[in-house]
Amino acid sequence: MSTEKINEYISQIKSLNFEAMQKAQERLDFLAKPPGSLGKLEDIAVKLSGISGEMFYNIGKRALIIMSSDNGVVDEGVASAPQSVTYAQTINFTRGITGAAVLAKQFNTDLIIVDVGVNADISHPQIKNKKIRKSTNNIAKMPAMSYEEAERAVLTGIEIAVEAVKNGYKIIGVGEMGIGNTTTSSAVLHAFTKLPVQDIVGKGAGLKEESYARKIKIVGESVEKHAPDISDPLDVLAKVGGFDIAAMAGVYIGCAYMKVPVVIDGFISIVAALAASKFHQNITDYMIASHLSYEPGYIYASKALGIDPSLHLNMRLGEGSGCPIMFSVIDAACAIIRDVATFAEASIDDKYIDEIKDGANFIV
Amino acid sequence: MSTEKINEYISQIKSLNFEAMQKAQERLDFLAKPPGSLGKLEDIAVKLSGISGEMFYNIGKRALIIMSSDNGVVDEGVASAPQSVTYAQTINFTRGITGAAVLAKQFNTDLIIVDVGVNADISHPQIKNKKIRKSTNNIAKMPAMSYEEAERAVLTGIEIAVEAVKNGYKIIGVGEMGIGNTTTSSAVLHAFTKLPVQDIVGKGAGLKEESYARKIKIVGESVEKHAPDISDPLDVLAKVGGFDIAAMAGVYIGCAYMKVPVVIDGFISIVAALAASKFHQNITDYMIASHLSYEPGYIYASKALGIDPSLHLNMRLGEGSGCPIMFSVIDAACAIIRDVATFAEASIDDKYIDEIKDGANFIV
Repeated sequence: MSTEKINEYISQIKSLNFEAMQKAQERLDFLAKPPGSLGKLEDIAVKLSGISGEMFYNIGKRALIIMSSDNGVVDEGVASAPQSVTYAQTINFTRGITGAAVLAKQFNTDLIIVDVGVNADISHPQIKNKKIRKSTNNIAKMPAMSYEEAERAVLTGIEIAVEAVKNGYKIIGVGEMGIGNTTTSSAVLHAFTKLPVQDIVGKGAGLKEESYARKIKIVGESVEKHAPDISDPLDVLAKVGGFDIAAMAGVYIGCAYMKVPVVIDGFISIVAALAASKFHQNITDYMIASHLSYEPGYIYASKALGIDPSLHLNMRLGEGSGCPIMFSVIDAACAIIRDVATFAEASIDDKYIDEIKDGANFIV
Repeated sequence: MSTEKINEYISQIKSLNFEAMQKAQERLDFLAKPPGSLGKLEDIAVKLSGISGEMFYNIGKRALIIMSSDNGVVDEGVASAPQSVTYAQTINFTRGITGAAVLAKQFNTDLIIVDVGVNADISHPQIKNKKIRKSTNNIAKMPAMSYEEAERAVLTGIEIAVEAVKNGYKIIGVGEMGIGNTTTSSAVLHAFTKLPVQDIVGKGAGLKEESYARKIKIVGESVEKHAPDISDPLDVLAKVGGFDIAAMAGVYIGCAYMKVPVVIDGFISIVAALAASKFHQNITDYMIASHLSYEPGYIYASKALGIDPSLHLNMRLGEGSGCPIMFSVIDAACAIIRDVATFAEASIDDKYIDEIKDGANFIV
């Protein structure tokens, strides 16, 4: 049943509105500035027009969706923090005291916190209970989850995104909390790209050398052992992913379906974006990168997606922490296309040259 | 007289408060996140503590100082826009319709617009008249200005910054408007660094190939011809700089003197920062980079300063347009050190492991 529902959403994803993009580009080229001189702010403004069909998109209400889940692979000692941190920080989001929660508040971003597989019972009015089950399996030994569970996780993400947009959010960020999820993300990235494991695996939150070597080994071996079918993103997510990554992939799909821009955070978030991009060729068009994660795999995933981050902050916290800051940059893009004067409005033309020669006295 | 006044300011510039920086770093290391995982946001928070002596700096009221001036070198055809644009855009800042003015409004930043050498008489209540004279000389033929004029321009910048801080601004951005000033900035950078002219000279606002070749030639020849003494930044600014660059250098000096953080914009702004850094070894400590300009010389100046921009937006507008966006990133840094919970506050410790094993039901 999940299969059909997912396919129904996917089948309705459209390409961007090229006419609106062209009009936006034309306006930008007529603004009183050297053409292209506002760089990515202009690119983002054009993209927002393509997504929305409007010349002036106002991102207004913004949300960061955080998928919390645990990963069985922590049994292998690949994480520097205990699994309990997933649970504690999921609660702490509601208290506004984690990195992403603080940044969300700073940038007027609402949090949508979703438990898709935390290894504890959570009953909290501000946390959506969409638990697939408590923690995935240890990918070093068996597939992370069944195919059907992967479908349910992806569908959960789609439905959360669709609901958020229906509730008035006009831009969505995609974050996560899940100890061990740089390992699963590395495995998903390795599966899709076949890049050397040692290039894409990083030290996550701060692994020691010995654990890092083990992490590299486990990422390589788990992909080899379960041999996911990379023509089927659900199979990859099921075998070496996590409930968090699968649900995040669903958020990207849901945003594309609802035609709202969706902002990628760091490494785990961009791997989920890469997985989402395999569901339909147009999903990437709705994505906007935020920051270049310090995690080494990020850049490979961003190259695979053809997406370029605007913020270079050496961040590697996750949680969606880069998204609220990026919303602010996107606000800048919206302001530029809307408020900068055209050459005509700015009256920058040859008549001023004579005035200057005459030593004109200009009073507005 | 300007000499003595400048020296008086310079002599009172202090190093950062290392004790405050250490305390800030200690707090950051106790926050509930992997150490260092918020990257440059943490570095900025530490720097703000070093500048202010306070653990929690609130940047509050923020200003962008824009130095407007004309450059005689435009006679050589090195600019893609007519000189009149300096004048028109200087007026347009007050109308809130240029790129930087729009971004300033978006990010609650006040503009302080200063005419230090626009080639027209300007009498406008929102533009400070600090004109040294109308336009510099053509550096292809003679030094841009006299040594005494360079001193006056630098002192003007210092005094404008000191006044702004006294008026309650707690962070300052440094922008400019001056057709032809990527040529003069390239010359200043070439003089200080001796780097190959073809590496550091860019196409500015959008030069055609022929004009670009001429620009490269003029930058190289003007530095060779006037042979500025690079042990004396005033001599460099006088011979191949501009009133804008000199006054901007003064703003950096004034901010260091007043112990407030000062944000660098793009290419011209960072060349002025480099010139300022030659006045006193500690001035750089007060600087924060904003964006990596698309102009090729930027990266050489940033390396020379040992400073690393957070925003990669391919922008090349100038005007100070990167500063208001960066203020927002700095707000993020302030929020992080102030509001993220410590490990103790976040209660992330071993007691949670048992709760998880028990399937604890957590309600806040």
